[in-house]
Amino acid sequence: MPKKMKSFAIQPVDQTIKPSILAKIDNLNKPKGSLGRLEELALQICLIQQTLEPSLAHPCHLLLGGDHGIEREGVSVSPREVTWQQMINFTHGGGGVNMFCRQHGFKLRIVDVGVDYDLSGIDGIIDRKIARGTKNFLYEPAMSEAEFDRAIQIGSDLVDDCVAESCRVLSIGEMGIANTSPSSIWMHLFTGIPLADCIGAGAGLDTPGIQHKYQVLSQAVNNYHLSNLRSTSGRSQGENSHLSPLSYFGGFEMVAAIGAMLKAAEKHLVILVDGFIMTACALAAIQLYSAAQDYMIFAHCGDESGHKRMLDAMGANALLHLGLRLGEGTGALCAFPIVDSAVRMMNEMNNFENANITKYF
Amino acid sequence: MPKKMKSFAIQPVDQTIKPSILAKIDNLNKPKGSLGRLEELALQICLIQQTLEPSLAHPCHLLLGGDHGIEREGVSVSPREVTWQQMINFTHGGGGVNMFCRQHGFKLRIVDVGVDYDLSGIDGIIDRKIARGTKNFLYEPAMSEAEFDRAIQIGSDLVDDCVAESCRVLSIGEMGIANTSPSSIWMHLFTGIPLADCIGAGAGLDTPGIQHKYQVLSQAVNNYHLSNLRSTSGRSQGENSHLSPLSYFGGFEMVAAIGAMLKAAEKHLVILVDGFIMTACALAAIQLYSAAQDYMIFAHCGDESGHKRMLDAMGANALLHLGLRLGEGTGALCAFPIVDSAVRMMNEMNNFENANITKYF
Repeated sequence: MPKKMKSFAIQPVDQTIKPSILAKIDNLNKPKGSLGRLEELALQICLIQQTLEPSLAHPCHLLLGGDHGIEREGVSVSPREVTWQQMINFTHGGGGVNMFCRQHGFKLRIVDVGVDYDLSGIDGIIDRKIARGTKNFLYEPAMSEAEFDRAIQIGSDLVDDCVAESCRVLSIGEMGIANTSPSSIWMHLFTGIPLADCIGAGAGLDTPGIQHKYQVLSQAVNNYHLSNLRSTSGRSQGENSHLSPLSYFGGFEMVAAIGAMLKAAEKHLVILVDGFIMTACALAAIQLYSAAQDYMIFAHCGDESGHKRMLDAMGANALLHLGLRLGEGTGALCAFPIVDSAVRMMNEMNNFENANITKYF
Repeated sequence: MPKKMKSFAIQPVDQTIKPSILAKIDNLNKPKGSLGRLEELALQICLIQQTLEPSLAHPCHLLLGGDHGIEREGVSVSPREVTWQQMINFTHGGGGVNMFCRQHGFKLRIVDVGVDYDLSGIDGIIDRKIARGTKNFLYEPAMSEAEFDRAIQIGSDLVDDCVAESCRVLSIGEMGIANTSPSSIWMHLFTGIPLADCIGAGAGLDTPGIQHKYQVLSQAVNNYHLSNLRSTSGRSQGENSHLSPLSYFGGFEMVAAIGAMLKAAEKHLVILVDGFIMTACALAAIQLYSAAQDYMIFAHCGDESGHKRMLDAMGANALLHLGLRLGEGTGALCAFPIVDSAVRMMNEMNNFENANITKYF
């Protein structure tokens, strides 16, 4: 954990109530286990909320935007200007994230954490800009420790705002051209899976493009390790001078997402984790507080094999497999009605006694 | 096709409009293909409805109930009384099907097509009872050709009622203890997959139970083939005397589902196909009118390997994999919001020109 990082009071969910939850689930009028994943979800949500009558009231979606210095290395087919253009588009309601928020009743907060464009006058965008994009981590850390702390605090504060509105379920999405690059590196560093297996097509790279991306990221990881060796050889206080991969490679929107996840876990919210990038942020959050995973529902696994392997490394099994790769949190939002079904099962389904039905199997 | 069966005017979807649909999808402000299965769904629904602005207005769910003579052979862990008990429970709103209909705004029609209990006085149950359960197909055909025709007509008429209410999307579920048995046999007869591979645990059979089920169904299939040999050797008019597997093995609720699917295809409705039993009915419907498949969305694939193989045989790929095995159409209903997301994508998402965004990939 970075030396001075804000701390969170995250507890593993209390399992004491588990037998009561399972007894309620097993006595609903259906063959035992016949609602499959919905029953697992219901158990998890009841544990998170420590109740037999869970709620997904006031769902909130954070759409966090930021640009990445590494974009200058040609690791993305899309130019960085798409980040700010899409941020503005979201304020007009025409993006993927907008329609799914409308569909499922999520309050959408669009937050500029570090977009490389002046969005300060735009109605509908919350200005939390730390800088106009991160630095290029091929040559230097993407952000300072102070910027990292600020991004964590921003994410945490955004969740406090949601909680103040009685939010019980949080979904997080991102808009940041090139942010699959830091995600792949985090995955590599935190799971030990070879870097090449952590890199995919992103939003549409061809094979030479993927090759180039691998070379750039591989060099960046080497440079990072060399920097750490240098700082370690000259250290005076042990590992405190070790460079955190979170600040070295992270995007402002990604670190803010980590802060949001950690605060949400502290506040016992249900966290819907989106695709590859948000899964990498979840993985990073779990490095800091392993108990945070108790609060996470992994919503969607994309077609990229790397995403599946990252989920496997966390022992997670995504709810949906729809081949989505838009980002913005669209995978998390699309999974919401399934999670809602699980909650409705607990609250609305009759049990055998009330229904006067022969218990069946 | 049974000799005198009602005919349906089912056309393959007209592909003329396809380039216009694809052009619209590809110009929405997202990387091309980045909404994955949603884009495939949008194409299918636009083709079904022959429009670039599809609608899922007035969704209807048919819950069709019927009992099965084969239940007497101990092929199900649940006793047949569960069928009528659940039918009554559905009228009180406490079943799985009820909560998901409420969640997704489906009008629910609960229909007694052949339950072995007098439900005629029960408010909320539409009385279309053909008989109190089918005959035991281990010894004789489950229903007569006249009963088969009546069940087809019942399903067809129910869809006409939905269409009269401007319904554009139909979901069908079933309640019928032991109806995995005829489903497995249909799958075997229509795909050629060995019977043993078409039989699973149903709603909770153990290994000896599955063995017993296999022996019973295997004997029933043998008896069916022998009956056909006898009737063929004594025939006067060629194949007309051939016994249809649809009436020989089918349940009233299953044949009504086939009639409903065929009428829905004729009327260009979107059809949400539920789990194993409804997939078997879809397979049967496609034997009669292959073009009907154009109108079907396969909603959920359960854990049983047989279901996956049946879908594979139809070239179908289910939307959800949630381990559901409740029946009632719950899998179809749970998939509805995903289908709805695809339609919203077509109607609500901005395109690149309107959004002033650099087209990206």
